[in-house]
Amino acid sequence: VAIPPGVNSRDWDAALRQFRQAVGESWVFTSDEDIALYRDAYSPLWGEREERLVSAAIAPDTTEQVSAVVRTANQFRIPIYPISTGKNLGYGGSAPNLSGSVVIDLKRMNRVIEVDDKRHFAIVEPGVAYFDLYRHIQDRGLKVWIDCPDPGWGSPVGNSLDHGVGYTFGGYRDHFQAHCGLEAVLPTGEVVRTGMGALPGAKTWAEYRYGFGPTVDGLFAQGNLGIVTKMGFHLFPAQEAYQNSVVTVPRRNDLIPLVDLVNELEHTGLVGQPVYGSPLGGPPGAFPPELAGLLKRPGGPPADDLDRFAAERKRGSWTCRLQFYGSPRVIAAHIEHAKERFTSVIPGSTFQDGELLRFPLTQAQLDRVHKVAVGIPNMSIFSIGARTELNPSPSDGHLWFSPIIPKTGEAIFDAQRVFMEAFATLGRPSLVTPFSTPATWMHRAFIFIMAFPISRTNVQQNQRNRETFRTLVRVAAEHGWGEYRTAPAFQDDVMAAYSFNNGALLRLHETIKDAVDPNGIVAAGRSGIWPRHLREPRP
Amino acid sequence: VAIPPGVNSRDWDAALRQFRQAVGESWVFTSDEDIALYRDAYSPLWGEREERLVSAAIAPDTTEQVSAVVRTANQFRIPIYPISTGKNLGYGGSAPNLSGSVVIDLKRMNRVIEVDDKRHFAIVEPGVAYFDLYRHIQDRGLKVWIDCPDPGWGSPVGNSLDHGVGYTFGGYRDHFQAHCGLEAVLPTGEVVRTGMGALPGAKTWAEYRYGFGPTVDGLFAQGNLGIVTKMGFHLFPAQEAYQNSVVTVPRRNDLIPLVDLVNELEHTGLVGQPVYGSPLGGPPGAFPPELAGLLKRPGGPPADDLDRFAAERKRGSWTCRLQFYGSPRVIAAHIEHAKERFTSVIPGSTFQDGELLRFPLTQAQLDRVHKVAVGIPNMSIFSIGARTELNPSPSDGHLWFSPIIPKTGEAIFDAQRVFMEAFATLGRPSLVTPFSTPATWMHRAFIFIMAFPISRTNVQQNQRNRETFRTLVRVAAEHGWGEYRTAPAFQDDVMAAYSFNNGALLRLHETIKDAVDPNGIVAAGRSGIWPRHLREPRP
Repeated sequence: VAIPPGVNSRDWDAALRQFRQAVGESWVFTSDEDIALYRDAYSPLWGEREERLVSAAIAPDTTEQVSAVVRTANQFRIPIYPISTGKNLGYGGSAPNLSGSVVIDLKRMNRVIEVDDKRHFAIVEPGVAYFDLYRHIQDRGLKVWIDCPDPGWGSPVGNSLDHGVGYTFGGYRDHFQAHCGLEAVLPTGEVVRTGMGALPGAKTWAEYRYGFGPTVDGLFAQGNLGIVTKMGFHLFPAQEAYQNSVVTVPRRNDLIPLVDLVNELEHTGLVGQPVYGSPLGGPPGAFPPELAGLLKRPGGPPADDLDRFAAERKRGSWTCRLQFYGSPRVIAAHIEHAKERFTSVIPGSTFQDGELLRFPLTQAQLDRVHKVAVGIPNMSIFSIGARTELNPSPSDGHLWFSPIIPKTGEAIFDAQRVFMEAFATLGRPSLVTPFSTPATWMHRAFIFIMAFPISRTNVQQNQRNRETFRTLVRVAAEHGWGEYRTAPAFQDDVMAAYSFNNGALLRLHETIKDAVDPNGIVAAGRSGIWPRHLREPRP
Repeated sequence: VAIPPGVNSRDWDAALRQFRQAVGESWVFTSDEDIALYRDAYSPLWGEREERLVSAAIAPDTTEQVSAVVRTANQFRIPIYPISTGKNLGYGGSAPNLSGSVVIDLKRMNRVIEVDDKRHFAIVEPGVAYFDLYRHIQDRGLKVWIDCPDPGWGSPVGNSLDHGVGYTFGGYRDHFQAHCGLEAVLPTGEVVRTGMGALPGAKTWAEYRYGFGPTVDGLFAQGNLGIVTKMGFHLFPAQEAYQNSVVTVPRRNDLIPLVDLVNELEHTGLVGQPVYGSPLGGPPGAFPPELAGLLKRPGGPPADDLDRFAAERKRGSWTCRLQFYGSPRVIAAHIEHAKERFTSVIPGSTFQDGELLRFPLTQAQLDRVHKVAVGIPNMSIFSIGARTELNPSPSDGHLWFSPIIPKTGEAIFDAQRVFMEAFATLGRPSLVTPFSTPATWMHRAFIFIMAFPISRTNVQQNQRNRETFRTLVRVAAEHGWGEYRTAPAFQDDVMAAYSFNNGALLRLHETIKDAVDPNGIVAAGRSGIWPRHLREPRP
């Protein structure tokens, strides 16, 4: 049996007794088979000495049980690591920063506490998955949509607390921004409610987020000051219809006005998530010979030649899928407006309108729609990494590298160049091409995301990829770009890049951490914030 | 010369020397005439022993100067109270919670650091007023709008840090939600940047708000952990046109579906700020005799009789001004959609369309538009309280009572009844009528706001109004409603209503306060959060 670090076996036995008393015998897991389930399935440290493992897991069913478990952990200084439900693949899974921590698994707390389809909000527990919330809404015919990530087995609470993101409209896509009020168990076991929830019998807990006085909610996201046991979320009113339209622009440098125009539409609230692409793009190494030749030119691909290449093939240089929501009349006006703007600013812009979908969808429509764009959770994203004829040896997983870059075409070109050069300098195959486009989940910034493959058998490949990853974190920081989220293996590295004024922000986090969690029991090391007894002495 | 509480005169002299060294002789104010300017012009304690006064004021010009001033204050344990610019009238002005504090007046820090009209953001210092930012944008012909409160002399930094609100579209109206990243001087004098700003040379400080790890920004709003010296704000792209349309619904109980429909439009992003009213409303005591008779019926006014009264006068029972932004085509579609929804759900709904305004406006249009609705700061709001033939003895000021209530028609009816009963029980004239409607500045909740008059000569009136105010805070809390903001005189009372789990949230605030500001020098008592040496011992 594993024992958490810094805990003696007598204390551990006493703690286990108390844990069992709090949650029931069958909800304290210590067997190897049980705790193996909490390994990060995509761990970049798989099978290595440094892999982050858990010593035990506890699954409480209520806030009171969470509170009792935390009090015991605090009494015996047992490191705990809360998780909700879902997998957090590519960003660390359910494994803790500090090996030997006890996972607090909140999946049993799966109550949808309230959904209001006049005021458009939900209040849920951490074990509620997007699927659960969606079914709750559908079963009752409520007139609200959720915004969910891909895949849909995650939890609104967990995803938003990781600054996770989705696929529909404006602020709803930023899941932490869409939250409104929370309940958390502090490291002392005390239960706190934030926002209007601090007012007993509050009627607007999930409507007005600030309550009175300072708001502490942000401390719990990517943080380690407590265990969140309830959260409210603003929901999107159910929409009558959905339609997308793909705009194609002919020239490479049209990317710059393209992004500017899409920003204008998006920040005005006329389109949902824009999805950029390039008809010239493809996996690195799979370009047709003529194009591959152009790309090898010293100093980067010449825009004119790329434009000619695109023009000859009638393919355009860049596309953006614009997504529209509302009544058919509203959608038609938004599409017409977008077309007017693009054709007046970018000569040669063309449009391909998608099907106008009215809700509820027919089964055939449901089969072909991008489900998350209309708030329907699903698991089909996993087909991307599946073993197929075209992809006979898929990787065992992946690791996301997710630098935030400005929302401009210039920044996309910069990021392409900088990261391609970095891969070249490292002598490693580039994950980036001159046609790479950013992810657009955030409402106000781009993520120039890339996925490093993970192997369960090739330790050397994982090591090299980790080195490359760390180098890219540094290269990005040199250009003013930082990651929004990363796996525990890299959280110290990423936080180190946020070093303004000799790490003033991290020191503030540590000051707060030490005050609120003096024994340093909750999620030690999360986001690079370690409790005092585990911190390196400062020079 | 006044001396701050808890400071001996030798330390005070030494501190004043250091303050003068830091900011220059002429920017440290200690004369009676100078510090009188920092009295709360609308103080509900005007001229009484308890009035919150300042002992001195210091006006630094740079973050470095703020840091130097704060280090000195920390060294000598001098209570300081930061203000930006503008007046905060009705919510406490520039006077501190702790009498004798030294005001840190940031009005000289009035630099617009950056405005980007492709990515739609601004970064400003605290002394930048909405007027300044507006002029900066206009002078350069930048294609962004600001969202400003009324009047426009306030500062984006100060207003957002008080959870202030505005008049245009969706999330832009919530000024703290629209913020993105900040710089603050901590009570130790250390400078911290949040969000992406923590990354040196960050390119997306005002684009992506979370950076990496927990976010501390919320702690600085209505808080007292430091002095904010820079903030980023998302801005609304400049709009081509604006139009409003007033919907009138005939029956009293139509208020319920009216609010539901407006919520649907607003949360979908089709309208800006909705403005509710009642054609039957008016100042309490000014109703025509027949209506006054109906209102006196025991058990409240009978809806049928009110409906008949309204119908006979062809006036309708409720109105809502819907405000539309975008191109004329988009606006027309949104208005048509709104009309379809209302006429299908509320029989008898009628509409009165306003003028379609295209930007830039003509002078004549500018003179008649509600300027803040189109992001133009101004001071004309003060005409409301001015001495006129109709209002020969205006009050000397006012005090806002601002309870947050749910965004439903039912909640409006509840609030009318509860507060009218409370005034009746107190034997005081009611500020609420059966036709009172809530303010709608918040995006997702109503404020059932009312203004108590303030007198500079009638202490007894102020005392009675303070008692009434405190009673209403308690009555509201009994119904699950809490205030979002209040003057220092009432901040302890309001925070006391946020008492879930025996005041767990306040205790968390105090724990963080003591850790980050161990000498308790910054804005002691703000939002009811007092430093350890000034707290009442807990029972």
